[in-house]
Amino acid sequence: MNYLMIFKSLGTLCYIEAAGMLIPFGIALSGGRGGATAFLFSALITAAVGLGMSALRPKNTDIYAKDGFAVVGFGWLLVSLLGTLPFLFSGVTPSFTDALFESISGFSTTGASVLRSVESLPREILFWRSLTIWMGGLGFLVLMLAILPGARANTVHIMRAEFPGPSPDKFVPKIGQVAKILYGIYLGVTAAVFLLLLLGGMGPFDAAVHALGTASTGGFSSRSASVGAFGSAYVEGVITVFMLLSGVNFTLYYALLKRNWRPVLRDEELRLYAVTALVATALVALNLSGGVFRAPGETLRHASFQVASLLSTTGYTTADFNAWPTLSQFVLFLLTVCGATAGSTGGGLKCVRVLILFKVARREVGKLIHPRSVRAVTLNGKAVDEPTLSGVVIFFFLYVTLAAAAILALSFDGKDLLSTSSAVFASLNNIGPGLGLVEATGHYADFSTLGKLTLSLCMIVGRLEIYPVLLFCAPTFWRRVNL
Amino acid sequence: MNYLMIFKSLGTLCYIEAAGMLIPFGIALSGGRGGATAFLFSALITAAVGLGMSALRPKNTDIYAKDGFAVVGFGWLLVSLLGTLPFLFSGVTPSFTDALFESISGFSTTGASVLRSVESLPREILFWRSLTIWMGGLGFLVLMLAILPGARANTVHIMRAEFPGPSPDKFVPKIGQVAKILYGIYLGVTAAVFLLLLLGGMGPFDAAVHALGTASTGGFSSRSASVGAFGSAYVEGVITVFMLLSGVNFTLYYALLKRNWRPVLRDEELRLYAVTALVATALVALNLSGGVFRAPGETLRHASFQVASLLSTTGYTTADFNAWPTLSQFVLFLLTVCGATAGSTGGGLKCVRVLILFKVARREVGKLIHPRSVRAVTLNGKAVDEPTLSGVVIFFFLYVTLAAAAILALSFDGKDLLSTSSAVFASLNNIGPGLGLVEATGHYADFSTLGKLTLSLCMIVGRLEIYPVLLFCAPTFWRRVNL
Repeated sequence: MNYLMIFKSLGTLCYIEAAGMLIPFGIALSGGRGGATAFLFSALITAAVGLGMSALRPKNTDIYAKDGFAVVGFGWLLVSLLGTLPFLFSGVTPSFTDALFESISGFSTTGASVLRSVESLPREILFWRSLTIWMGGLGFLVLMLAILPGARANTVHIMRAEFPGPSPDKFVPKIGQVAKILYGIYLGVTAAVFLLLLLGGMGPFDAAVHALGTASTGGFSSRSASVGAFGSAYVEGVITVFMLLSGVNFTLYYALLKRNWRPVLRDEELRLYAVTALVATALVALNLSGGVFRAPGETLRHASFQVASLLSTTGYTTADFNAWPTLSQFVLFLLTVCGATAGSTGGGLKCVRVLILFKVARREVGKLIHPRSVRAVTLNGKAVDEPTLSGVVIFFFLYVTLAAAAILALSFDGKDLLSTSSAVFASLNNIGPGLGLVEATGHYADFSTLGKLTLSLCMIVGRLEIYPVLLFCAPTFWRRVNL
Repeated sequence: MNYLMIFKSLGTLCYIEAAGMLIPFGIALSGGRGGATAFLFSALITAAVGLGMSALRPKNTDIYAKDGFAVVGFGWLLVSLLGTLPFLFSGVTPSFTDALFESISGFSTTGASVLRSVESLPREILFWRSLTIWMGGLGFLVLMLAILPGARANTVHIMRAEFPGPSPDKFVPKIGQVAKILYGIYLGVTAAVFLLLLLGGMGPFDAAVHALGTASTGGFSSRSASVGAFGSAYVEGVITVFMLLSGVNFTLYYALLKRNWRPVLRDEELRLYAVTALVATALVALNLSGGVFRAPGETLRHASFQVASLLSTTGYTTADFNAWPTLSQFVLFLLTVCGATAGSTGGGLKCVRVLILFKVARREVGKLIHPRSVRAVTLNGKAVDEPTLSGVVIFFFLYVTLAAAAILALSFDGKDLLSTSSAVFASLNNIGPGLGLVEATGHYADFSTLGKLTLSLCMIVGRLEIYPVLLFCAPTFWRRVNL
């Protein structure tokens, strides 16, 4: 393993994070409640750590596949650790575990919180939470690639390990350039939400917080009651549409920018995503029409918002879906497991994996009838190779197994089984709110230290899509190759 | 598809079922509450159906792989339909759906019940339930093979489709003889439990019911409070041991009979099964020692009984585990999913599949570090072929997906999410009792007709291990090949 090169890469991450801390520093300066020093110290420490790491001079600058995984694993850990500093210095979290939970929840775009009363928090803290989630959105590492001037071709290993979804291979040639374009799109979406929310009469601070949370499909809000607090159909409409848009593979937007409609129109994953959103909205709306809301329009408004929020794995809420009928609750749960599309800012299994799983299963049943038939599984008209297929099916097993292990660990806390399971899936799928104790307006403050660490690990596992985290547990991974 | 040969095979099943009805007929005669006519008519109709089917004269007597699946699918359906007759004629079930649920619950060795008060039911009905579960235990079709004099070599296709677990191939040469030996062992275990329970002072009727329920890992009891009603440590001890023994691959007993210790000692699945039972008992006992039971001995007694009952997928209970802490509940749930060993009378995924899943996942993680390494996955020292491996991983996906689909269908009933999910898994894993509404002393009477049919389908899907049922949904399966 090329440790020096790995640490050098991480130095750049620290600079970016330190720069990010300057915005809440500015907010704190204007607010004048003393939070400015907390952010100033945090930024200085973070920058200093970055300086130390960047000073490394590796002889060998090659990065291999497993180094890529190490950069991603160490990177998220480092960024999350440094991200706790503002919480600790400002004293809003009672313990380091709480600060770590909040920081990881941000960078993993989960949006779960251990803070009990959001409204009473200083604005700079609220903004920092939203900024961590936004930085985590399209991936810190992709951000790094976009900024690094001489991004080398072999950094595709980093991107492969961290970019959500199975295969970013198509970008290999001009990875630095493509990363910049992706972030350009990301910035554009964020700005669009911000402006549209301002137009709707929302204050600039709230608009910024919700723009960051929407574009990143992260979901931190400036209100305990989340988006529902604004009670505005316009605001909910804007956020519904942009949550869904943020759940779409960003490379499709890249294709659209190049006026290339074909890949968008024939994208099977996008079709599954759209159909899932429509069918789920219809199911939930029909189920709710029994009497949860008075007007049909209101029913559709809440149903579509919640479907968009949970399918895109954002986690904003406008209603207490804990009180909704079982059918709606389970449909919403299934959406969080399915998740958004690969290459988007969302979490969950990703639609493309669900698609491949069903196609592989159909082929397997077909084999029972015609044992000698050999058929390739295709995606967007192209055959998918067998290692990728088995990788996806095994991914599913690992996903369920890790969820079960986390529920087991969390059940030591003695909370009821529904709350326990729901907290794990809400963390693993990078959602935030769930059922029971962790309901829409609830929080994660009442879990034990072990419980919070378990859930933090779930968020990282979910965001990094399992394999990088599992690799860290393999002894052979740590064997030194070159230094 | 060779329909004539398929129906002819099913004729034999009807004869066996009609013969089984004669025992409760005898019980009813001595009881004298009029139940005798119900069983007499049931037996006559069942035998008549068998006569009609056996009268078929197929020109072509070959049975192919997919005919095997058809025999199994049609067979379980037919046997379950005829099994409703005693319930209907005696009037203990308010509807046909209820009778079907009870019958399928029996033949699938689930042991879930829609009957509210077990103690008030006629003895012949209680015995019939237990007999259906016992006949379903090692598989009706294996029974047929054992009785059919000229069992042909190609009937291995039937056995493959119905015998629980991945591969009964080792029996190919003398299938009829091996089936007889397996049933001999099965009868021996049943008789042993019966005698041991009699020795413990249990009445002959209760002893017979619990012997049938234990050897089949089915779990119907003659009491609403299940085995706990007897309040005897001896009775619980006997049943604990024999539930665990009945969850062991019967072919290992066959090896022991031939004084062949090697396959038993080196059987990895058996080791996993034993370790799982021990670890789970320790975990649950430690978790319960917090104060659910007073004495440590009592804690261990209930913990080991419940672990044995749920790991073997029997479903007998001695305590209300709904009131146990979350950790214990979740451990017990995981046991039901894992299930017993392949080739036993139990349900669930089966230990061997769990073992293969973890081995395949470990290999996949290893591939990330050494992408070019090609390692075979071994079981009991032998390499497992790749189609079997991918079949197992896909099986897991199908299992989870069908569970999710069933929960979705059942959630139309509007029961709470925990009860709904628990009912589905208790049916799919052929357990019986679960959490929430379907707790240890609960019943399934309050589900709607659609809900009961959904759960009945889950029981069949679980018992037949998914594929035969899925095949029935494939249009190409129905194409006629020869008649």
